[in-house]
Amino acid sequence: MTKQQFGVVGMAVMGKNLALNIESRGYSVALFNRTGAKTDEVVTEHPDKNLKATYTMEEFADSIEKPRRILLMVKAGPATDATIKELLPHLDKGDILIDGGNTFFQDTIRRNEELANSGINFIGTGVSGGEKGALEGPSMMPGGQKEAYDLVAPIFEQIAAKADEDGEPCVTYIGPNGAGHYVKMVHNGIEYGDMQLIAESYDLMKQLLGLSVEELADVFSEWNKGELDSYLIEITADILTRKDDEGTGKPIVDVILDAAGNKGTGKWTSQSALDLGVPLPLITESVFARFISAYKEERVNASKVLAAPAEYKYEGDKTELIEKIRQALYFSKLMSYAQGFSQLRTASKEYDWDLPFGDIAKIWRAGCIIRARFLQKITDAYKKDPDIANLMLDDYFKDIAAKYQKAVREVVAIAVQAGIPVPTFSSAITYYDSYRAERLPANLIQAQRDYFGAHTYERTDKAGIFHYSWYHEE
Amino acid sequence: MTKQQFGVVGMAVMGKNLALNIESRGYSVALFNRTGAKTDEVVTEHPDKNLKATYTMEEFADSIEKPRRILLMVKAGPATDATIKELLPHLDKGDILIDGGNTFFQDTIRRNEELANSGINFIGTGVSGGEKGALEGPSMMPGGQKEAYDLVAPIFEQIAAKADEDGEPCVTYIGPNGAGHYVKMVHNGIEYGDMQLIAESYDLMKQLLGLSVEELADVFSEWNKGELDSYLIEITADILTRKDDEGTGKPIVDVILDAAGNKGTGKWTSQSALDLGVPLPLITESVFARFISAYKEERVNASKVLAAPAEYKYEGDKTELIEKIRQALYFSKLMSYAQGFSQLRTASKEYDWDLPFGDIAKIWRAGCIIRARFLQKITDAYKKDPDIANLMLDDYFKDIAAKYQKAVREVVAIAVQAGIPVPTFSSAITYYDSYRAERLPANLIQAQRDYFGAHTYERTDKAGIFHYSWYHEE
Repeated sequence: MTKQQFGVVGMAVMGKNLALNIESRGYSVALFNRTGAKTDEVVTEHPDKNLKATYTMEEFADSIEKPRRILLMVKAGPATDATIKELLPHLDKGDILIDGGNTFFQDTIRRNEELANSGINFIGTGVSGGEKGALEGPSMMPGGQKEAYDLVAPIFEQIAAKADEDGEPCVTYIGPNGAGHYVKMVHNGIEYGDMQLIAESYDLMKQLLGLSVEELADVFSEWNKGELDSYLIEITADILTRKDDEGTGKPIVDVILDAAGNKGTGKWTSQSALDLGVPLPLITESVFARFISAYKEERVNASKVLAAPAEYKYEGDKTELIEKIRQALYFSKLMSYAQGFSQLRTASKEYDWDLPFGDIAKIWRAGCIIRARFLQKITDAYKKDPDIANLMLDDYFKDIAAKYQKAVREVVAIAVQAGIPVPTFSSAITYYDSYRAERLPANLIQAQRDYFGAHTYERTDKAGIFHYSWYHEE
Repeated sequence: MTKQQFGVVGMAVMGKNLALNIESRGYSVALFNRTGAKTDEVVTEHPDKNLKATYTMEEFADSIEKPRRILLMVKAGPATDATIKELLPHLDKGDILIDGGNTFFQDTIRRNEELANSGINFIGTGVSGGEKGALEGPSMMPGGQKEAYDLVAPIFEQIAAKADEDGEPCVTYIGPNGAGHYVKMVHNGIEYGDMQLIAESYDLMKQLLGLSVEELADVFSEWNKGELDSYLIEITADILTRKDDEGTGKPIVDVILDAAGNKGTGKWTSQSALDLGVPLPLITESVFARFISAYKEERVNASKVLAAPAEYKYEGDKTELIEKIRQALYFSKLMSYAQGFSQLRTASKEYDWDLPFGDIAKIWRAGCIIRARFLQKITDAYKKDPDIANLMLDDYFKDIAAKYQKAVREVVAIAVQAGIPVPTFSSAITYYDSYRAERLPANLIQAQRDYFGAHTYERTDKAGIFHYSWYHEE
């Protein structure tokens, strides 16, 4: 009996679509799902495909050629551990397990180490692009044993999205153990930031200029032709053209409740930044913005109780303000990526990953949710200086910042006066001003800490650790 | 041989001072420290005190009357577990172990449960007030078995600080297992926020108005006579009057390096808020502000590379701007506490603690770092409505917000134009505007999520979960 070249566990939409994508590149694929009926369904739906349904872990493992290459697409968390435990007795040394779920990177570090003790290779890979990306070409961020990755690289390179610019596949080896899932986590955090930035831009144009949904669609569509060219701007323009399909005749965006959900990866990104001591205000504000949006009932109540500012009328030129908002959005996007890559830089040192920063930006150019023309600028920046401390210092970044800072300052000042919350715009300019501050008022904070807690301080004029005798009795 | 009434493990400054405080209330205290020389030192330094040095865990335990009341003041983390493990064989059912360290609340939950299995009560208590507070009267936040707390309450009430207003001791039973350490953690987060707010006020007056250190001392001293009356404002005024003791003759604040350290409790507060889905932007921005202050070298470098805004000259009245900054500070402080108590409210439900919000504000009125006249307003608010969803909705809070919002909007607008980073001021007004927004632009975010990830959406006009057919092929 001929063996299958690849195996996929988990026949929910992502697992199914990745299996179909792999099969479409000429590989035979063994399928397994906890409930066999689901596996049957997939095979029945695609009778001409080179897919083999299996119904026990043993049958599944036996049907795959060695060293086995098996992709797990199960719910991240305990289900992943349970699946590995069931599968393990049927595996052989040198086999390669690949976890393609949205797994917390520390879990991947742990599983990689545990499985290595049994001689099994374990790759944790980020997969971005949603259902459609899984089927047609996702962006993939694999981490784990390099020699194991080399054995799956030919498949990954075939199924991954290809960059428009140069046709390069959107996948590259990220680093050992949890590196891939970490990078995917930061990708998702950046995605939160991008989405909140777009939401604030939309809100400002709606509230300050009274643009209609149709006009807003045109603006985003126009923006998508320039430096903001990206998937999220593109779908925003598209969303704004769509009508409700539940019969109200209204634009769909106007009937959707303003309460955003989240699946936790944005939160993880902020929590990791806090652990690493990396300032990540923009993404974190975007996570908090989702939280506060979910307080819908409290907000409706508060809107009747809390005072609004004096009514603000924008009297200037419409087109001019739209352009300023565009500049504010792009400026803030640059700050967000600068923060995200600063976090990657610190994580790379902390976990000894040696992350390929330029290549990471490169594999995000297609397939994934944050794909954007702008990412090439990051790749270029790391090509010029692989050790750059912060992307803001790159010529492209600093020139844009210099050109656009006036606009973002004006937009934030207007929003604050008008009572329109712009948490990520505000935090972007604050980050810029903090980072370029030769002197911050933290000297006062350190004095307070030394005063009440004897935490000591350093000096501006000489090295060493000092403590001031704040209390005379000392 | 008479037994001692209380025991303290750990003779670093906090343990020593708490032991002296307890002894001063008429209790005999057994002391133990890993290195006995340190214990000897304490006893020798205080020959007339009712202190008993012990040199083994067995001797220590044997010297204390039953049920034993033992306070552990060791380094939070593995040292606490190690100490408990060593002590456990010498304890009896019904004994009470008290951890007074800055322990992560999840560790306290775990230890409380583990020790309960051996019949040992475990109280995790927050202790705030630094060295001086430990000796003269700290604010204490104990959590654990209520019946065990009742046995230590008489001592805690004697050693705690007393509120000026009514002489009440600054200690109360907080709730089961980790509740006390959780509340202490949020206390510390609030402390980070308060300190950053003061630092931003100081920076604005220095940069926009060119106030000298002496003038700044006067301003803070004046502020301390009004509604801002608090320990941190008081010590800020004091700090600004102090001269360097290393011979430069300069004000000490001017020679202290602008790089603030942190011991992790602020970070924990933000991470917990992220876990609970509670928006906590102000405290989190203050944590990030410390992180970015620590990037001193990078900032000095960036200050030479990144463009500043066009020079900003404040042309208005000096006294007027100082008053606006004062209002901005008080407004922002209210927002910070509203956020912190909103977090406590969610944590109370999540961990089933039934936290006494009004009493928590009450026991912070003296002894601790964030002690302030303002805290009485929080106690009053919870007295009026124990179930208030957010402190901002309380009459006092909403009236101040209505009165002061204009000032904070102006101050933030000026700071952003002038290029002076005010992360917590900005986040305060953003939180206010977000919370009072009947409609936020999160509908667009939810549309995007449904578009690329089929995450579904809710509607404004009817209940249910919906998914839009964004792709025609669906």
